Amino acid sequence: MDLSSLIQKNNTKIIFVILDGLGGLPINGKTELEMANKPNLDSLARVSACGLHIPVDYGITPGSGPGHFGVFGYDPLQYEIGRGVLEALGLDIELQKTDVALRCNYATIKNGLIVDRRAGRIPTEKNIELTNMLSENIKEIDGVKIILKPGKEHRFCLVMRFSKNITEKQAMVTDTDPQKEGKPPAEPIALNKESIEVAEIAKKFIKKAEEILKNEEKANYVLLRGFSALPDIPSFEQKYGLKACSIAVYPMYRGITKLLGMDILPVEGDIKEEMELLKKVYKDYDFVFLHIKKIDSFGEDGNFEGKIKKIEEFDSFIPEILSLNPDTLVITGDHSTPCLLKTHSWHPVPLLIKSPYVFGATVNSFTERECLKGELGIIHATSIMPLVLANTLRLRKFGA
Amino acid sequence: MDLSSLIQKNNTKIIFVILDGLGGLPINGKTELEMANKPNLDSLARVSACGLHIPVDYGITPGSGPGHFGVFGYDPLQYEIGRGVLEALGLDIELQKTDVALRCNYATIKNGLIVDRRAGRIPTEKNIELTNMLSENIKEIDGVKIILKPGKEHRFCLVMRFSKNITEKQAMVTDTDPQKEGKPPAEPIALNKESIEVAEIAKKFIKKAEEILKNEEKANYVLLRGFSALPDIPSFEQKYGLKACSIAVYPMYRGITKLLGMDILPVEGDIKEEMELLKKVYKDYDFVFLHIKKIDSFGEDGNFEGKIKKIEEFDSFIPEILSLNPDTLVITGDHSTPCLLKTHSWHPVPLLIKSPYVFGATVNSFTERECLKGELGIIHATSIMPLVLANTLRLRKFGA
Repeated sequence: MDLSSLIQKNNTKIIFVILDGLGGLPINGKTELEMANKPNLDSLARVSACGLHIPVDYGITPGSGPGHFGVFGYDPLQYEIGRGVLEALGLDIELQKTDVALRCNYATIKNGLIVDRRAGRIPTEKNIELTNMLSENIKEIDGVKIILKPGKEHRFCLVMRFSKNITEKQAMVTDTDPQKEGKPPAEPIALNKESIEVAEIAKKFIKKAEEILKNEEKANYVLLRGFSALPDIPSFEQKYGLKACSIAVYPMYRGITKLLGMDILPVEGDIKEEMELLKKVYKDYDFVFLHIKKIDSFGEDGNFEGKIKKIEEFDSFIPEILSLNPDTLVITGDHSTPCLLKTHSWHPVPLLIKSPYVFGATVNSFTERECLKGELGIIHATSIMPLVLANTLRLRKFGA
Repeated sequence: MDLSSLIQKNNTKIIFVILDGLGGLPINGKTELEMANKPNLDSLARVSACGLHIPVDYGITPGSGPGHFGVFGYDPLQYEIGRGVLEALGLDIELQKTDVALRCNYATIKNGLIVDRRAGRIPTEKNIELTNMLSENIKEIDGVKIILKPGKEHRFCLVMRFSKNITEKQAMVTDTDPQKEGKPPAEPIALNKESIEVAEIAKKFIKKAEEILKNEEKANYVLLRGFSALPDIPSFEQKYGLKACSIAVYPMYRGITKLLGMDILPVEGDIKEEMELLKKVYKDYDFVFLHIKKIDSFGEDGNFEGKIKKIEEFDSFIPEILSLNPDTLVITGDHSTPCLLKTHSWHPVPLLIKSPYVFGATVNSFTERECLKGELGIIHATSIMPLVLANTLRLRKFGA
């Protein structure tokens, strides 16, 4: 339902913690959360509304974009973020409404055929050198500013910055990656009239880049993919009437929350530094989003001990969070990353909502299996924000 | 959501067991599943993801068609199977895309009024005799082949086989059953331009049949109902990328799974014979559907002891199924058939998914009330297949 007509403002404060990749699976009978010694999270769970959330839908494994969109109440099936936009956000490029973003590969071309789609995975240092060279030589095309940023190995990001706002339709251009070695690169094709301009600039960029890279042994060509513009999406303030900020170390999450119009606060380091920032800015916002990345990273590495330790480390900061006395505190993940699978997964994610208006006393600890007994049940991620607003008394009665 | 873009193939194998009419209701405090001595199902449940599924929607009692469609991930509210088609499938007629199927009644007409809509429920033997007589005398109408097959008592099935494919729209013709005795039969009316042809053939069939049956005392007329063509439905292979087969003794279930493009394997007998076939064909398919009918039949009869015994009999075959070592094993029902009600019911149906990627250890046995504690919660039947695909790692990540 559309909540906007029910929103009422007040002075309550919300702290919303995402422990990235929180959920796990049992290894020798116990999950990461079940193994972790986390007395603070467990006692918090005992007085909170607990449950699990399904990030996108049953059986669907979300990427980081859909995972975060869901918990923030933006249906990930309705708001799809383009791959180029995600890549740009991940490289900490401050995208604007005037931009088309693309993910690019250096590639090897020979006699008109792509013989290596990844240019032999050139070292990142080489990538930086080449991307700087392209940047210096291609500053604009037809009056459109060209912004390039190197990624890892053969990957880089291209942003076309126009002097006008760009719609998603205007960015609909096909990939040039032939997907298979031994084939010629594809032309960038405009999928509608409105995207012809972007396709033309892409063609010119490829030509210029080829000329500049012609003496390179491996990285003598570029492939362009994921043409996309910022989605047209209501901000957190518009949708919920919340003045929100984002405390996240990693570019991807800073980018995603910037899409939602949150203030992106500068922070480097890890949980400790994020916590210091939280305490500093807490008074200035209705809603503070705190993103804890490395639990997911250990999950992706299959590092069971590491993931447990990171959960325990976060647990030690709970008293500091509680000392701020937020009206509602949410702790959950954007998706599960079980060490058993070494990747994101589809499993429901433990969720805890602390507020004065919950039953509580339904679970003994904050784990996947205990949360099954919680008062929230298994809910879709998009139901979390309505519950948060309700628990801070920010939603008026519906109907008379 | 549309899964097709996320499907990835691999070599995993799925066994999907439907215990028809599985769920029950307590009689003297315990349900059929709670009374049954089923050590294998119970220990399986303890290491599986358990829950219950709602076949169509809360409070809705499904027929066999919608019940099976739901668990196979075809929303029964989107894909409605015509009654004529279901009847034909139930009589083991191999329907084709060129067919219109109808369910028919023998009826008694007197002075232009229907005085018995069921022709006094003539014996099935009489029905067979009459239907053979009609078959011999009406082989085609206007070049359209007429196929007749007797059912039970006064019921028979009519299939018009055209030489071209028939859409659902072309079969939209109204029933001729006046619904009340003492009224004249209704004309078959075409509900659109495209269905005029079918309506005309129906009129001619009625006239011819009346002429042939004119000397019958009771069954001297025919009423036509449920005009329908095969629904336009993606196959299991198209939808999920699964090479699937169906092991089912009863025509109805063979027919339903044939609609979904599964290979229908020949089998007669009961669980033992089905199990032998399963072991024989297991290696040739990604997905084997195993249908166990008689649990439902005992439910329909209100035979509490019989239903319990049948569940126990199936339980004894679990070790044989597990010896095949499927990557994912699903055991559930298409709907509940409580002996207390002697008919299908709306109650959620116990569900068990065994795979390496579940929490497990949430339930003590495979019963309605224990499954409530399971990690799947109460889900819509259409969520089962996405979970099965996820558990066999056949779904790519959604978004980046």
